[in-house]
This record gives sequence, C-alpha cells and structure tokens, in this order.
Amino acid sequence: MAGRTARMRLTRVTVGPAIVSERADVLAAEEPLGIRVNRQAVSLTMRTPGDDLDLAAGFLVSEGIVASTADIAAMRVCDGQRCGHEHGGHDHDHLSDEAMGNIVDVTLRAGLAVRPHVGRSFLTSSACGVCGKASIDDLHVPGRFDLFSDQVVVPAGVIAGLPDTLRRSQRVFERTGGLHAAGLFNAAGELLAVREDVGRHNAVDKVVGWALQAGKLPLTGNILLVSGRASFELVQKAVLAGIPVLAAVSAPSSLAARLATDAGLTLVGFVRGGSMNVYSGIERISVLRWEPD
Amino acid sequence: MAGRTARMRLTRVTVGPAIVSERADVLAAEEPLGIRVNRQAVSLTMRTPGDDLDLAAGFLVSEGIVASTADIAAMRVCDGQRCGHEHGGHDHDHLSDEAMGNIVDVTLRAGLAVRPHVGRSFLTSSACGVCGKASIDDLHVPGRFDLFSDQVVVPAGVIAGLPDTLRRSQRVFERTGGLHAAGLFNAAGELLAVREDVGRHNAVDKVVGWALQAGKLPLTGNILLVSGRASFELVQKAVLAGIPVLAAVSAPSSLAARLATDAGLTLVGFVRGGSMNVYSGIERISVLRWEPD
Repeated sequence: MAGRTARMRLTRVTVGPAIVSERADVLAAEEPLGIRVNRQAVSLTMRTPGDDLDLAAGFLVSEGIVASTADIAAMRVCDGQRCGHEHGGHDHDHLSDEAMGNIVDVTLRAGLAVRPHVGRSFLTSSACGVCGKASIDDLHVPGRFDLFSDQVVVPAGVIAGLPDTLRRSQRVFERTGGLHAAGLFNAAGELLAVREDVGRHNAVDKVVGWALQAGKLPLTGNILLVSGRASFELVQKAVLAGIPVLAAVSAPSSLAARLATDAGLTLVGFVRGGSMNVYSGIERISVLRWEPD
Repeated sequence: MAGRTARMRLTRVTVGPAIVSERADVLAAEEPLGIRVNRQAVSLTMRTPGDDLDLAAGFLVSEGIVASTADIAAMRVCDGQRCGHEHGGHDHDHLSDEAMGNIVDVTLRAGLAVRPHVGRSFLTSSACGVCGKASIDDLHVPGRFDLFSDQVVVPAGVIAGLPDTLRRSQRVFERTGGLHAAGLFNAAGELLAVREDVGRHNAVDKVVGWALQAGKLPLTGNILLVSGRASFELVQKAVLAGIPVLAAVSAPSSLAARLATDAGLTLVGFVRGGSMNVYSGIERISVLRWEPD
C-alpha cells in the first residue's frame, strides 16, 4: 500500500511574460480500495490510502449494515496472500500488483448479512453514498439512532471556530491542495478525530469507522465538520452514525437540507468568517442575542 | 422534474456579538437520476436536475459502452407513465413521486450490449466514476480514440484565461456556491459547451453527452476545464471522449497524473492567477519563452 501522497515531476508555466520551470510536486495519492463482506465483493472506491479499516468500517455503518463493534467478527487488509474466494466473482488466488494491500476483507457476526438489495454488489467511488441502491425508492437508509432525542446545545461561537481547528490538524492538504477533510468534535469544540481523503465521503466514512471501532456509536452530542459541501449522502452518513450536528464550510444541496429536517439533524452551512447558515435544527445552536430581521 | 435550484428557509447566525436573522436562500437542487439501458437498471446517481439526456449519454461514453450517436437507438426521460420493465427488478408500473421524471431510459443499437462485468448493475453517485467495476482489474476502461495522434497545440495564455470564461458562463454557481462546472473549449479558448452539477463527474458527463449527441466525438483538438480537482475518473472520462487536454482549477491526484501520462493526455492543474502546472503532455502547451530553473 502506498502512502497518502506521491511525488510527481511537473512543468510550471506562467504567462505574460511566459516563464516555464520544471519542478517536483507532491500530489494526493489516489488508489482503488475493494471492500469484501463475507467473501463477497461489495464496494470498490477510489480513496487516499491510509485508515483503510476505518474506511471499510464506516462504509458499513453508512450502508446501515453494522452499528456496533460487535457486528464485525473480523476485518483485515489482504496482504497479497490468499484472501478468500469471491462469491460469483473471480478467484483472487493471485492478486494483481495494483490490488495488493488494496482490499479489506470483512466478516460479519453470525446472523448478520448484507441486505438483499445489495446482493447484486454495490460499487462506489471516492464520493459515493448512494451506491448499492437498486432503485430510487431504496435511497433512504433508515437510521438506527434517534436524533430527535439528542438535546445537545452548541454555542454558535464553537461552530465558527471549527474550520480553523480542522485546517490546523490536516496533514496533507496544505501540501497538495487536493484533500478533503472530516473532523469529529465534541460540543465544546474539542477535536476527537480527523481524517483526510480525495473524496469527502471517504473522509466521513473514515471518521465514522474510527468511532465504530472505538465503541463510540451513536455519536450523541458530537459535531461533524466537512471541508466542502454538504450533500444528501453526507447527511445520511451523519444520521446513520447518530451525529446530531453536521457543519460544512460550503453550501448544502436541497436534498441534504430536506433529509436533515426529516431526520432531526442540525445542518449548518457556509461556516466561514464568523458566520454560518443554519438550515435545520436551530434549537441546538445557542447564541447570545436574537435579532429577527 | 424540479429545477436546478430550490428555495429554502434558513437562519443566519453571526457570532461576536451574535446576530441571528432568518432569510430565504437558494440551494443547488440535488435529486436522484436512474439510468436504464435496454430495460436494465444500470446506474443511480445524485445529480442536479437538467440536461438529463446529456448526463445519461455521457455516462455511457465514460463507461465505454457507446462512442457515437449511432450507438444509441432511443433515449427518453420517463414521465411517470409506464416506462418498461426492469430485468431482475421491480415492475415500476407505479413510479413513486420521487422517481417521476428522474429516470432516463436508453435503448442501444442492435448488437450493442452492456459489458458482462456490469451485468450485476453498476450504481453511481454524484461523483462516481469507478462504479460498475466488479474488481480492481476492471478499473481501466480502454479508450477507443488515440490521443497520442492529436497534435493540437494550445497557447498557455489560452489555458490561463479559461477559468474566467467558465465562471462568467455559469448560471447557478454564483447564487448557490454549490455547483461544479465543466466547460468544453476549442484551442482558441472559445467556449463550446458548459454544464453544471453538484457532482464534478456529472458535469463532465453532461458535456460529453452533449458532444456525443451533436456528433462531435472524438473531441479532437479540444480542451476540457473542470472547476475543482482532477481525479482519476475525470481523466478517464476525458480519454474516453477523445479530449487531448484536461485542465483543472485545483490539484490532480497521483493516479490522475499517472493515467494521463499513460493515455497521452495533457493534464494541467492549478490554473489560477496566470499560472498553471503541467503534469503530462507539455508538448501541447506553447509558451513564448523557456527559462529552465
């Protein structure tokens, strides 16, 4: 398995007057990761290498398949040795070079199985959240945790300070400009975990998977901050992990706002420059003064 | 089918001293689109409504299934009426409200079929490009067009000017801050087509699908500009459409640079402020002076 970044030769061009120089650059690494559950290939995602077990565990939470550490009997990164048979697929006795170290093999606890609608195999990308849904009606994965009962209250000033904390903790982004980050915070704004990835959805899955393995689900009273936009899929991932507050540096989509309202999630967007837009669940955000306009 | 944006009530919070105000906002719309090929559900993507036929056509190009208008016998948006049977799926005699208008039904020309490895169904998201690959070895979709023979040369100054042109032509982004854009340009920097979407990959598929339907594939001598980062999947989409130059406002990933080099694609990143980084195919970028450092 390669690292999170890769060095690369490139040519720098500046126009008017034109200047051309050659240099080395550091790029965010992107490689495929296959996820197999009970020896069946269920997901293929483009991701930044690292925290692969977190990513696989979080993916399973986001798909509604597991909700506690006890749901996973075993999980390992295949090391290029024999890694079990695929049902209905090829026998990977001989993994290709590119696949080596890029497959996570998960065994669920007895009695737990991948839901029927993903029986055909669900396949993902670095930003995939709806993969594995055979029809539009399957899109909404029901959550196991009740967000409406989470009565945490977070000062607006805490939310406003989260992006700076997240940026300071990012390791790769400053160098490559190419990675999204997701950070998990408590209601006091203390950072509990941060993960980076070329895909926003992977970064969130990695955080959620870390929490699952640490026995912290549901993430009652916590805040998830994402570096980019808030899509439907990110809201769904927060709901399935029992996170009551999702904050994004940029805009939410219409469907994200609708699902957040339906699920009892507090959705905050455009957290920048000391202000923010609250699209749902304002009762969890405390402020000093209220000036209706 | 809804529009590209949705109005939304929200609460604006500014801290220190706290100011809270309620207002209406415009969000980028995000809704699921199902794509069916020869009556088989093959894709489900979260996308910004609009240009749905372009999106479906471009998706099929990106998956290596079609390469010319003649490959598509018929294509239509289902209108909530009977829309054919799904093989192995439900009979959608009665589409749900959410599905209405959100399915594109494609019939391929006789003799053309979805490749075996996607027989299980390939399912996507707003940023999906590797969906439908059953194993890591399937990731690389071979291109039908030879980029190495494309001898177009583009002045660096033309590349430097593309982001401004793209921004001026975007309709929704300025209002919502939530949409990615992809623009197709000729070597003189003239804009041929622009499409927007919550997903970068969808925006590219829409541009490519427009070109397919206009009989313009392969897009020899043209430039594709994307508003965000350049991932492996975006490079693959450019290669499959026969586009020789891919420019991105932000960073490429390591795998994007590697695939670009292998496929003969000119990959340019960080196009901003009159400069750019060229990661592969520098021979297609012309400059006035050369000052090696």
